[in-house]
Parts: sequence; structure tokens; C-alpha cells
Amino acid sequence: MIVDFAISPIGVGESLSAYIAEVFKIIEESGLPYKHHAMGTNIEGNWNEVMGVIKACRDQMLKQTNRLSISIKIDERTGVTDGLKRKIASAKEKMG
Amino acid sequence: MIVDFAISPIGVGESLSAYIAEVFKIIEESGLPYKHHAMGTNIEGNWNEVMGVIKACRDQMLKQTNRLSISIKIDERTGVTDGLKRKIASAKEKMG
Amino acid sequence: MIVDFAISPIGVGESLSAYIAEVFKIIEESGLPYKHHAMGTNIEGNWNEVMGVIKACRDQMLKQTNRLSISIKIDERTGVTDGLKRKIASAKEKMG
Amino acid sequence: MIVDFAISPIGVGESLSAYIAEVFKIIEESGLPYKHHAMGTNIEGNWNEVMGVIKACRDQMLKQTNRLSISIKIDERTGVTDGLKRKIASAKEKMG
Repeated sequence: MIVDFAISPIGVGESLSAYIAEVFKIIEESGLPYKHHAMGTNIEGNWNEVMGVIKACRDQMLKQTNRLSISIKIDERTGVTDGLKRKIASAKEKMG
Repeated sequence: MIVDFAISPIGVGESLSAYIAEVFKIIEESGLPYKHHAMGTNIEGNWNEVMGVIKACRDQMLKQTNRLSISIKIDERTGVTDGLKRKIASAKEKMG
Repeated sequence: MIVDFAISPIGVGESLSAYIAEVFKIIEESGLPYKHHAMGTNIEGNWNEVMGVIKACRDQMLKQTNRLSISIKIDERTGVTDGLKRKIASAKEKMG
Repeated sequence: MIVDFAISPIGVGESLSAYIAEVFKIIEESGLPYKHHAMGTNIEGNWNEVMGVIKACRDQMLKQTNRLSISIKIDERTGVTDGLKRKIASAKEKMG
């Protein structure tokens, strides 16, 4: 499945990048295929792999802040091992 | 933590309520505090409890469809056992 | 269309309810059907009505903070004037 | 402001890429800075510019389907003209 997720501390001020850097390290170390964008990160794996990474990011952030928000979007399709790039490529082909 | 989540089958037609009914049963049987709204369901519990319910909903829906989407929003605050109603009540008090 | 939306200031501390109270007032005054839940608000109306309310909430919050985040989910179905409660009722009927 | 958005037809089958291709054309023609990822598109502009593009995508899709869902996430920060890449770069610098 492909998952898009974002995590933010609440109540720590306006600049969040130091907190996000910690999260980026955990994602990098997971070994799963991923791609950052300006509003979140796409990760690909099975349920336990991806949710394990997100939980590790949350556990880390709870060491640094008392409140946080997480958003997760999942697109799961049986029998499709997608490659994070396939979805965009497929729509682009059809732009004609 | 308080979690808002929604799950939808993709590619099964325009009417989704028969699929959602199956999900409602799983949420009901979980025993966790929850509240449905028109665009999703709020559930309260710890990480494993809530994610366990969402995974059970997804496992059920994968028996009925080949593709699905899930969206999850989490608000977690250390040391606050919130009650699903406390957040709205707190803002309403301040409306003056 | 039915819209679920949430707006939060960033960098103002951990307690957000005073900011949310201002948003609740704007929603109330819009006259559109709405329902708050613990993680956002459902509103029903056409595109310009609902987006007008969300923009008014954002304009108000930008007077109080330098950074904010908004999430919006839209479910639009041609020819269905839904009533915010119809969706849940429809799934509940099918729970059997 | 930076906006992440995704739009999907509901009830048209499992493969959505032909519908998404139409949306990609509208985004391309808007002239706004954008970046597609596997689960949506980041766009940068002011409120009216970005919401105008999203509404155009929705109007187009309503010609092709009776039901659709849209999700929108906004990150707005006064006085920051961000560049879609600045946010990721800022976190990466702090990974050390």
C-alpha cells in the first residue's frame, strides 16, 4: 500500500523543521521506499511496516513535545505493487 | 488520543453505505468510545487500540473490494484523557 | 456538498480553544447547516457558500497568528441534497 | 500558501488515471508552481489562485462523474514566500 503521512508538534512555536528532521531520520532508517514532498511523505510497504514507521515517528516526537497531530492517507490496491512513481506516470500517459 | 478516520471502497459504484455498515459494526464491537459524523468517525483510545480497530475495518473491506482509501487524523496530547466531547465544549465556553 | 474542515493556529502554544471559539462564531453566523465533532466541523452548502465560510475563518485566524493549517474534505454528489445526517443513517440501516 | 490536494471520482471503477489526467492538464495550464506526488499535488499561490484551480478541477470532474471526493491541506505562513522545496530543504539541513 501507498501511504501519505505528516506529523507536526503543537505548541512549540512557528518553526517546525528541527522536529521534522528527527522524523526524516526515522523514515530514512526504515529502509522502506519513500518520497518527501512539501506537505508530507509518501511511503510504500505493507500495513505493519508503514504503521510501524509512523508509530516510531510519533514516539520520538512525544519525547520532544506534549501535543502533536498526525494525518495519514492510505491507498491500498490488492495485487498491485505500485512503485511510488507508477501512479503519477499512469495519469501523465493519459494526458495525451 | 483522539482519532478521526474514514474508509471507502474504490470501484464498487456510487453507493457506499452497505460497505460502511460493516465498518460500523466493527467499531461498535471494539468497545472504544466513538462518535460517527457525516464524513468519518471519532474514536478515542491508545495507539494500539485505535489502530487495531482501523486495521480490522480495512481487513474486512479488503474481503469486499480490491481497492480502498483510508484517511486518519490523530490529535494526541500527553496526560489528557479527553473525552470526545471535551474539545468542543472547551471552545464553546470561550465563545462568550 | 458536505464538507468536513478543521483549522488550527501554529506556534501559539498548546491550548487552541480560544482560537477555535472565534471560528465557531463565524460558522454559526453563516447560517449554513453544520455539526461540530471533536476533530472538525461538517458543513453543508454549495461550493461558494462553504468555501466562503472557510475563507472567513482563515482571514479571522490570520489576525491572531502568523501560521495556520487547514484541512478540508469534500464529498460531492450530484442531485443529492443530503442533510448531514442522511449518510450515517443510511449506513446504520444496513447494519441489520 | 502551500496547498496539497487530491480529487477522486467515486463509482467509476477501480482505475482512476484517465480522470486524474484531466485534472493534471488544468493544474498545468494554471501557471502556478506545482509538484505531483503519488497521493496528491502540492500547489503554491494565494487563496483565490489555488482555490480557483481546485474548483476548476472539480467542475471538470463533475462533467465525468456524479460523485467525487476532494481532500485539501493548507499550510499558510504570513510573509513567507516559500518555494515548494524550501520546507523539505529546511528539515534536511537539520538532520545533521
